Amino acid sequence: MKYSKLFGKTRLKAPHDAQSVNAGLLSQAGFIDKVAAGIYSFLPLGLRVLHKINAIIRDEMDKAGGQEILMPALHPQELWEITGRTRTMDDVLYRTRGAGNKDFIFGASHEEAVTPLAAKFVQSYKDLPFSVYQIQTKFRDEPRAKSGLLRGREFGMKDMYSFHRDEKDLDEYYEKIKRTYLNVYERCGMKAYIVEASGGAFSDKFSHEYSIVTPAGEDSIIIDTKTGHAQNTEIATGKIKNPSDNEERELPMKEVKIERGLTVEENAKAHKVEPWRILKSVVYKVDGAPPGRDLRRGEGFLGVAIRGDLSINEHKLEKYLGKPVKAASAEELSELKLVRGFISPVDQPNLRFIADHSIKNVKNFVTGANRLNHDLVNVNEGRDFIIDDFTDLVLLDENALDGGDGHKVEKAVEAGNIFKLGTKYSTAFGLMYTDEEGKQHPVVMGCYGIGNTRLVGTIVEASHDENGIIWPKSVAPYLVHLVSLGNDDNVLAGAEKLYGELNEKGVEVLYDDRNESAGKKLKDADLIGIPLRLVLSARTLKEDAVEWKVRGEKEVRMVGLGDIVDKVAEFAKS
Amino acid sequence: MKYSKLFGKTRLKAPHDAQSVNAGLLSQAGFIDKVAAGIYSFLPLGLRVLHKINAIIRDEMDKAGGQEILMPALHPQELWEITGRTRTMDDVLYRTRGAGNKDFIFGASHEEAVTPLAAKFVQSYKDLPFSVYQIQTKFRDEPRAKSGLLRGREFGMKDMYSFHRDEKDLDEYYEKIKRTYLNVYERCGMKAYIVEASGGAFSDKFSHEYSIVTPAGEDSIIIDTKTGHAQNTEIATGKIKNPSDNEERELPMKEVKIERGLTVEENAKAHKVEPWRILKSVVYKVDGAPPGRDLRRGEGFLGVAIRGDLSINEHKLEKYLGKPVKAASAEELSELKLVRGFISPVDQPNLRFIADHSIKNVKNFVTGANRLNHDLVNVNEGRDFIIDDFTDLVLLDENALDGGDGHKVEKAVEAGNIFKLGTKYSTAFGLMYTDEEGKQHPVVMGCYGIGNTRLVGTIVEASHDENGIIWPKSVAPYLVHLVSLGNDDNVLAGAEKLYGELNEKGVEVLYDDRNESAGKKLKDADLIGIPLRLVLSARTLKEDAVEWKVRGEKEVRMVGLGDIVDKVAEFAKS
Repeated sequence: MKYSKLFGKTRLKAPHDAQSVNAGLLSQAGFIDKVAAGIYSFLPLGLRVLHKINAIIRDEMDKAGGQEILMPALHPQELWEITGRTRTMDDVLYRTRGAGNKDFIFGASHEEAVTPLAAKFVQSYKDLPFSVYQIQTKFRDEPRAKSGLLRGREFGMKDMYSFHRDEKDLDEYYEKIKRTYLNVYERCGMKAYIVEASGGAFSDKFSHEYSIVTPAGEDSIIIDTKTGHAQNTEIATGKIKNPSDNEERELPMKEVKIERGLTVEENAKAHKVEPWRILKSVVYKVDGAPPGRDLRRGEGFLGVAIRGDLSINEHKLEKYLGKPVKAASAEELSELKLVRGFISPVDQPNLRFIADHSIKNVKNFVTGANRLNHDLVNVNEGRDFIIDDFTDLVLLDENALDGGDGHKVEKAVEAGNIFKLGTKYSTAFGLMYTDEEGKQHPVVMGCYGIGNTRLVGTIVEASHDENGIIWPKSVAPYLVHLVSLGNDDNVLAGAEKLYGELNEKGVEVLYDDRNESAGKKLKDADLIGIPLRLVLSARTLKEDAVEWKVRGEKEVRMVGLGDIVDKVAEFAKS
Repeated sequence: MKYSKLFGKTRLKAPHDAQSVNAGLLSQAGFIDKVAAGIYSFLPLGLRVLHKINAIIRDEMDKAGGQEILMPALHPQELWEITGRTRTMDDVLYRTRGAGNKDFIFGASHEEAVTPLAAKFVQSYKDLPFSVYQIQTKFRDEPRAKSGLLRGREFGMKDMYSFHRDEKDLDEYYEKIKRTYLNVYERCGMKAYIVEASGGAFSDKFSHEYSIVTPAGEDSIIIDTKTGHAQNTEIATGKIKNPSDNEERELPMKEVKIERGLTVEENAKAHKVEPWRILKSVVYKVDGAPPGRDLRRGEGFLGVAIRGDLSINEHKLEKYLGKPVKAASAEELSELKLVRGFISPVDQPNLRFIADHSIKNVKNFVTGANRLNHDLVNVNEGRDFIIDDFTDLVLLDENALDGGDGHKVEKAVEAGNIFKLGTKYSTAFGLMYTDEEGKQHPVVMGCYGIGNTRLVGTIVEASHDENGIIWPKSVAPYLVHLVSLGNDDNVLAGAEKLYGELNEKGVEVLYDDRNESAGKKLKDADLIGIPLRLVLSARTLKEDAVEWKVRGEKEVRMVGLGDIVDKVAEFAKS
């Protein structure tokens, strides 16, 4: 392809409304164009990348026994009413009404399409197991769509669904696809981690996410560098830092008058102690009394204590309670006769308190005295206050993590997820099979998603530098970016000849044949990010050579024109 | 692929609600599944066909210099307001409202997306010409969606758009794509005719349709067998049958009393004349007085006379008047004091009459006397009645066509169309370029569509028999349908071996390995319609051979197992 003819050239700068690295670089480099928030056109360069990713996905799904199908985007609303997702996903559904007042939902997901489809073809255990997948557009009315291709309102997805006679068969297939997914990311040039996902605070859904590490990631994950497994900090458990030896003697508690700010840091500074010495107390309003737990004291409120240098993981707290929580408002605190910033579990007959395990390792805490500008020092659990229950409530972030056991925290982008759906959808749609004894059972299902357009964005987030994108070879729009510098006839003829030779060898070449400055052409090459840049100029021609530079590497070297086609072929295979 | 594992098996019969040949056969054979009227899932077999068609389309568009892109389906409504198609296409648009009360239209076409996109990249004449295309889903709320894949509410389309500096450049490219389109159909195994399209009654849009001849076609086209060009009967002009020599003497007109039916046939029978002797008169209500034409007489009504054996082409009539017409109702006729079935242009001072040229060649017409059960015979134009204007109003169907000049009428399905859009969209979206002198001009556009999912259905309409589909090799889901008959171990082992050998050679094989009756398996093979059927049974094994049958041919022959792989490879290339 000659760059002069390519539709979708580079722009001088990223569009002003590109709020993410991927949208900025991909737009500026001419891969995509924004139509509206979360809605993009793929230009020729971008579509080449997407097609390469699709080919890798198809190949891996086929190898895993998946059969490709294509279900429609328009779903009769009745189907979604059957599963109740007209309500549970109401916010993100695009709806329309067609001829004959028929209501449709634009597929935000395809369980409602694939399950009744499978029900038409599955009768007996002999029809199981099988799996089908599609590469199809999804429509989701995301309230915030500011992450470029990472969160689209219209986006591409590969969704696979598997159908099994029992949990055991699903489990085996699920493990197989776990590996298949790692292959996909690896072949796309990305290192992905399998993350145990939270599946929502109140869900027991079994699922895993695949995360790709990048500083721009929206999620934090904790990687076990020994196993390669990872946890989302939302639910991560693990060894936390232990700054105290817990061998101190318990000193007598006393109340002190002090003028201080309300944050832990300000508090610690005022008392001239480390933040971990502070006993942090947060009061939550619990949405309804949690079943089996006593919330009579405090009338639906709950105190939570944690070591001052740590943060409370509200997701863990909700999971523990089985109820949503919300930090109590200033008004609610004063109704409870609590003084904001000076709360402590000491002398709280009307408020139930639970705590994170972390407070067990510290003696002689500093905490509020429930009076403005009054604190208590040398406060000790068991002696000065009682905790109703200890549990793991710590947010395992970089700050909290011990790290000595090979765990580290990284920012990451989610690049896929897999779920064991069980019989939820098969029961809803009557997808049953008959076993050897003639007994009917619901089919056990799994589902497996990779956002293919999102993956384009993820790769850019993970693989770029200050000059532009750095495409992994396997998904690069072209392998070689050939650049001619200057208008010397010999240079132009030489570049044209090399372009022809490379094309003949089946090498994918983008040839920048424009009459532009060297600066502009080299800058564009870096921005576009094709793996191998070959520059031909009067200077290189003198040496009967071409300048060779691999994107993302510093080294620039000369390769003789006689060798270049072979060297490129070698590079392609490497 | 083993048929036992394939998702989407044949059904015993076509679904009861399949109202077209293509939907019936494709559903029964396991290629597609209906989700709602005009909305289908593609099962593995069907998707293989679609992917093969897509590959042919891509290859031909690339060869014609098209660059593939992918625009979104969600279009901000503002874009469609700019072109006014929110109104002109209102009926068929699916709409939705998203976050922030933003209104969207689901792309029924993509001029509103591609034109502003092009405007971002086109500045000067140097950026022209170019063409981009996409293979994308379209959404159209068709009022009637009863033709299977021929008229979908959600359907796939390849739409290409070309951009030029002037009409001349567009014309050249348009001619190039005309040939490209013929290549596409030919490579899909179909003979397509280029049909001059009507472009709507009130449009001067220049366009062509591609039609594939099939008895189930919705359209009638008139093929010029000498040139291969064709016309849609909607607008076709040409030589009509001339049953009268026009050498008759004009006889005296007289009124006769007669009891007869109201159709031309009944009328002719009662008078013992040929239908062409009847002067047929139809009264139309014209929607508003047409500009420059006198409709004062008859107050917005118009009489049209034509020879009795011919039909009035209302499309031509509307084009002539520049206004929509509607046959006058019984009530309207009586208000006009006209007697239904006995209307004639004789003695009609209050009704303007025009006529088709055909009445000029007949003397001594039979026509109504404007009184119930009274007719006039020996009626002659000029002497007994006056026609205000003669024009071509004949519907050129099989009945009317002379045929002597090499024209014939065929039923056909539209399989694509191409339009010269001119500057309509570029003007609307400010898509301008600067010429060599620095002057600004609107870009001249063309657009070129092929419904790829519709083409799947069209091929089935054009290529099937009473037993099932007959796939052209180039788009067949598999090349070979290997069938093992019986449970003999040697047969199963032989089939398995042959299946392996063919796969190894890269031949696409569907192997029916099921434990089913010979009848069922051979019936399914015919229904599915794969080009080459190979049957292995105890009987063929005795001859160390396999039974070879090409779908759509009668001949069945035996081919030695030693030769079979080579013969299949030959067949693949043939």
